[in-house]
Amino acid sequence: MHTALDCIPCLVRQALEAARFVTTDRAVHERLVREALLATAAMDFGNSPVVMAQRIHRMLRDMAGVHDPYRAVKDRFNGMALSMLAQLEEDLAQAADPLALALRLAIAGNVIDLGVNGNLTEPEARRAIVSVLNEPFHGDIASFCQAVKEARSILYLADNAGEIVFDRLLIERLPTDRVVVAVRGGPVLNDATMPDAKAAGLSRMVEVIDNGSDAPGTVLGDCDHAFRQRFADADLIIAKGQGNFETLSDETANLWFLLKVKCPVIAGSLGLPVGTHVLTRRMALVSAGGENHARC
Amino acid sequence: MHTALDCIPCLVRQALEAARFVTTDRAVHERLVREALLATAAMDFGNSPVVMAQRIHRMLRDMAGVHDPYRAVKDRFNGMALSMLAQLEEDLAQAADPLALALRLAIAGNVIDLGVNGNLTEPEARRAIVSVLNEPFHGDIASFCQAVKEARSILYLADNAGEIVFDRLLIERLPTDRVVVAVRGGPVLNDATMPDAKAAGLSRMVEVIDNGSDAPGTVLGDCDHAFRQRFADADLIIAKGQGNFETLSDETANLWFLLKVKCPVIAGSLGLPVGTHVLTRRMALVSAGGENHARC
Repeated sequence: MHTALDCIPCLVRQALEAARFVTTDRAVHERLVREALLATAAMDFGNSPVVMAQRIHRMLRDMAGVHDPYRAVKDRFNGMALSMLAQLEEDLAQAADPLALALRLAIAGNVIDLGVNGNLTEPEARRAIVSVLNEPFHGDIASFCQAVKEARSILYLADNAGEIVFDRLLIERLPTDRVVVAVRGGPVLNDATMPDAKAAGLSRMVEVIDNGSDAPGTVLGDCDHAFRQRFADADLIIAKGQGNFETLSDETANLWFLLKVKCPVIAGSLGLPVGTHVLTRRMALVSAGGENHARC
Repeated sequence: MHTALDCIPCLVRQALEAARFVTTDRAVHERLVREALLATAAMDFGNSPVVMAQRIHRMLRDMAGVHDPYRAVKDRFNGMALSMLAQLEEDLAQAADPLALALRLAIAGNVIDLGVNGNLTEPEARRAIVSVLNEPFHGDIASFCQAVKEARSILYLADNAGEIVFDRLLIERLPTDRVVVAVRGGPVLNDATMPDAKAAGLSRMVEVIDNGSDAPGTVLGDCDHAFRQRFADADLIIAKGQGNFETLSDETANLWFLLKVKCPVIAGSLGLPVGTHVLTRRMALVSAGGENHARC
């Protein structure tokens, strides 16, 4: 997905918000904003906004001299999500359709995105999870379940820390012997890396790999060879979040996107309002429209 | 007033919004955004954001090849305001304190600012005027009236087209023989220039001058000598809108600002919430706080 002009002021705003999140040093705030302005002025708008976000966050980590500036907040959101797990497992045990509920919870977890909203609080995230069934939903759960049943191998592309704990609820209801979970190859924003997969308990459950890249999405050309091979070989790919959507929506693989629509550009691309919880297949992108509440 | 880092993404967003307002040519949209990014990357943040907005709008007029791209919308908002005049004059005739109401209406008219909200509609503007007395207000009207009585000369700095019609309601209740109204020296955004003062009927009522500058505020160094002389000689200066506030809040003249707070940076500077209708004296800026409903 290319970079819309509307993404440009948003990228600059996100750079400032990230700089303030990472350091109180005002000189770094100003330097990062100026560098972000220069970089976006020269950027190829044919690339996804994720490519620019990757560059901005590399500059920020370099300027602040911190390898993983979001580590503490990632731990906090993992902890929050883990504290909700027992109750959610209980809800799932009593649900008429546990897989459908697990899918909705995994999408709801996508609210934990400090790129779009750097000021997200734990209570806000908690409320979003608890009220998941009141959120507008668009997607064909029955077709998704069918695709899962038919797939010999499933590659699950995680998105954010915290969110990855809610992913676990869905992943443990998939055929785990055929599932590989991929996280980012290096710290960027609050995106999930290997320690988050471990904290979520996923490493004990399925194979977890990293993609070799520190982009807040899946920029295939920036991922390592091993990951690209897994991507090419997977029968079915489940991709979480806007970053993965922005970077993979033009790929021809058998991709299913699970995300919460958080900005007008993605909303326009999907033809769905901001706030919608979406399950959509890559090939279905051009014909999105109408509610669908089918169950597995 | 210097440029806050929060102003930067906003300036870029305004550049894009303005480009889309002025032309449907996508190449111009992209070119202006890239030029705005480069210009803000190099800007002196010690200057007001108005200086950058002036530069961006000069580039836009140049790229689009249009001298006064907001002329049609300025005419439309003038027309809308003029159509409300008879009813408002009736309301004023029956008001317990006509000067206080005229002052509130002049501030309410400051909603017509296409820099902050390029998508403002006439019905929205109309509603804002009609419901003026329900809006949160901060200011010492009695002190303002006293200052007006004592002033031998008053310089009234207008802000936007449309708004200038509502200014007329206040101006005709001032000692008009001692009032000079100043408009911008050249087209920028929907700011009022000489044709708008004429459309509002001000030219028949008081002396109207222009300031020789196309900045969407009052950048004294960019104004012509004649205006600067009037500014220096005025006993009392009434300055409308955020642009005039941003450019003049550090001046030592006897300045009274009348504006609607439309962004978080100005809100922070004044210590008042976004949406507040404000009458404030320059010297009072450091000690703003609390409601004041005194009447003339």
